[in-house]
Amino acid sequence: MTKHEPAFSVAEYQRRLSLVRGRMEAEGLDILFVTNPSNMAWLTGYDGWSFYVHQGVIVLPDADPLWWGRYMDGFGAHRTVWMSNDRVLSYSDDYIQSDDRHPMQTLAAHLGDLGGAEARIGVEKENYYFTARAMEVLSAELPQAVFVDATNLCNWQRTVKSAEELVFMRKAGAISSKMIRGLMERVEVGLPKNELVADIYRDALMGVDGDWGDYPAIVPLLPSGSDAAAAHLTWDGRPFQKDEATFFEISGCYRRYHAPFCRTVFLGDPPREMRHAEAAVARGIEAGLKAATPGNRACDVAIALKSELERAGITKTGRVGYAVGLSYPPDWGEHTVSLRETDETLLRPGMTFHFMPALWMEDWGLELTETIVIGESGPAECLCDFPRALVAK
Amino acid sequence: MTKHEPAFSVAEYQRRLSLVRGRMEAEGLDILFVTNPSNMAWLTGYDGWSFYVHQGVIVLPDADPLWWGRYMDGFGAHRTVWMSNDRVLSYSDDYIQSDDRHPMQTLAAHLGDLGGAEARIGVEKENYYFTARAMEVLSAELPQAVFVDATNLCNWQRTVKSAEELVFMRKAGAISSKMIRGLMERVEVGLPKNELVADIYRDALMGVDGDWGDYPAIVPLLPSGSDAAAAHLTWDGRPFQKDEATFFEISGCYRRYHAPFCRTVFLGDPPREMRHAEAAVARGIEAGLKAATPGNRACDVAIALKSELERAGITKTGRVGYAVGLSYPPDWGEHTVSLRETDETLLRPGMTFHFMPALWMEDWGLELTETIVIGESGPAECLCDFPRALVAK
Repeated sequence: MTKHEPAFSVAEYQRRLSLVRGRMEAEGLDILFVTNPSNMAWLTGYDGWSFYVHQGVIVLPDADPLWWGRYMDGFGAHRTVWMSNDRVLSYSDDYIQSDDRHPMQTLAAHLGDLGGAEARIGVEKENYYFTARAMEVLSAELPQAVFVDATNLCNWQRTVKSAEELVFMRKAGAISSKMIRGLMERVEVGLPKNELVADIYRDALMGVDGDWGDYPAIVPLLPSGSDAAAAHLTWDGRPFQKDEATFFEISGCYRRYHAPFCRTVFLGDPPREMRHAEAAVARGIEAGLKAATPGNRACDVAIALKSELERAGITKTGRVGYAVGLSYPPDWGEHTVSLRETDETLLRPGMTFHFMPALWMEDWGLELTETIVIGESGPAECLCDFPRALVAK
Repeated sequence: MTKHEPAFSVAEYQRRLSLVRGRMEAEGLDILFVTNPSNMAWLTGYDGWSFYVHQGVIVLPDADPLWWGRYMDGFGAHRTVWMSNDRVLSYSDDYIQSDDRHPMQTLAAHLGDLGGAEARIGVEKENYYFTARAMEVLSAELPQAVFVDATNLCNWQRTVKSAEELVFMRKAGAISSKMIRGLMERVEVGLPKNELVADIYRDALMGVDGDWGDYPAIVPLLPSGSDAAAAHLTWDGRPFQKDEATFFEISGCYRRYHAPFCRTVFLGDPPREMRHAEAAVARGIEAGLKAATPGNRACDVAIALKSELERAGITKTGRVGYAVGLSYPPDWGEHTVSLRETDETLLRPGMTFHFMPALWMEDWGLELTETIVIGESGPAECLCDFPRALVAK
């Protein structure tokens, strides 16, 4: 068995573990059990399409983490995690989709062996993949344990990216830029939408400069015309139409790290109000980038952007960005910091956001966005590169 | 707002609703709430990448279903569901990723309005997207209601595909076949694996004969050599090697319907034991197809296959197939019927399975599989088309 090339150094994984253990101690958790595949990967290096069965990582204050999951995926763990093989626990397929057994029974047994029978155990109660039934079984098997909701404990430790992580974010940004360049070249009236997506995916996975492309956590979203209001509907085979706007919400992905990047095309002459919005958004992004500096807060970025939009007579409601980094389907946001008026999180160097001042009107949507990294000082840096303008073709 | 072309006829959606209502009555459920996006789509036609926020469909015995989800996705519902717009309920973004609110509070209010305060309400407790926290909030808001685990109630009604559905399954099968043909043509020593996947995806989304390709619920899985044992690890940029086997586990997807299809390549002269296994698997599949006939049971297919393998001295443990149909990430199985000795489900015309007699040995994995449909009589029909043999290049 060959171990796969690790994504990060052992020192980096130890850095991450220290952060999480610090938070566990502060919150009085004896054990933390993470099911979010992003957190599993961030803590251990585990990377596999196995999050459709129960699995997780047990984090302890004073011993290496334990990977726990399905037997066959344990072989995947052997190949990808930084811990030694004796830190990989697994359960047999008898427990999968069975009426009288549940994998959480085996986890409960392990937690019991680790002294967890009466412990305070953090679990990610709001995480996808941690089902209501999983919680039921765990509680029934460990009735004296106290299960504390630690849904975003690990996510919050991920907000400041290390230098090693920023290398990956930049590679993702290069792939995102290539994807946008390619689609802008190819999009035209009459082209069936699925055919454009086929080439977007090809660009995504070919990667850039020898950096291979990984699968993005969300498929390309590219609604046209009035469908812009229903922005999560995926493509079909209908052709692009003349005099319609389409925005492209895509992300390159390098070893699970994302740099979402959106641009918009109008096939024809854009209506004046769209050009007006475009100019306001471009100014708003510049203002936001200046505000996205250490010592400021997340809300300051949102306020800077929205002030510019208001000056142009445009009222934007809702948040205008969110933290990004590594992720697995179904989402690429980190579920921590939002760029909105109510979020007073202090900005620190190394934080990365999808800065997304999207405007969705009745007949068109305009998405001109940037993935940004907070620098040591000064305005934030953009990780992707394509003119920040509406493309008219 | 233009309604998107519905996937199925209204009569088809009514057929499905009747099946589910029948089961609800048999199980004494007053209300059924489904969160599984596959079940949401199957019941209403809703199709969007929005399953990363809380959403679902409320099924009632005597009124049209209600779609419930995020405000912006309500616009997606307007465009895709067969029900009228007044059957679309939504909640504002204030409820998303908030510390003091949860979307399930709004659902609970709707269920209360529907007379559900003291009802028996079926919920999909083991579904990926129905989190532990969601259940907590629902229970707290409706303390007099009885929440019954109805995880696979709707899934089981999906097992027999209608004629309309089989049309989609066949289109998916055509796309799967094209994907395999393409990759077998392109795979060669020295080719970086991600580059092959880039073209697999392109083929998948281009579709076939004017039938546009949808995104598969699982990414292509294609482990090489001894990595066959860790079959859920995804690709990287390493090149294909001489004298190594790689199996390809892919699926075409047509409007969410899948026809998984696996083939294996050996770049060089395959070892004798692999050829021996290949022959045994091919015979086993023939035997399984004959056994896959109405009146037989799921276990009979498994037994027929395994008997052939045993005659060749090969012991295969675990299941050898599972029900497939429509699906969303992270899985394409329907979580109902398994082709294994312990599953006595009666086979009926229109049932569809991924018949998967995969063999994973120490240095190689062999996957030669078929997606099959049970006919009115006689052996099952294969929905994909590519020689059922190991490819040696």
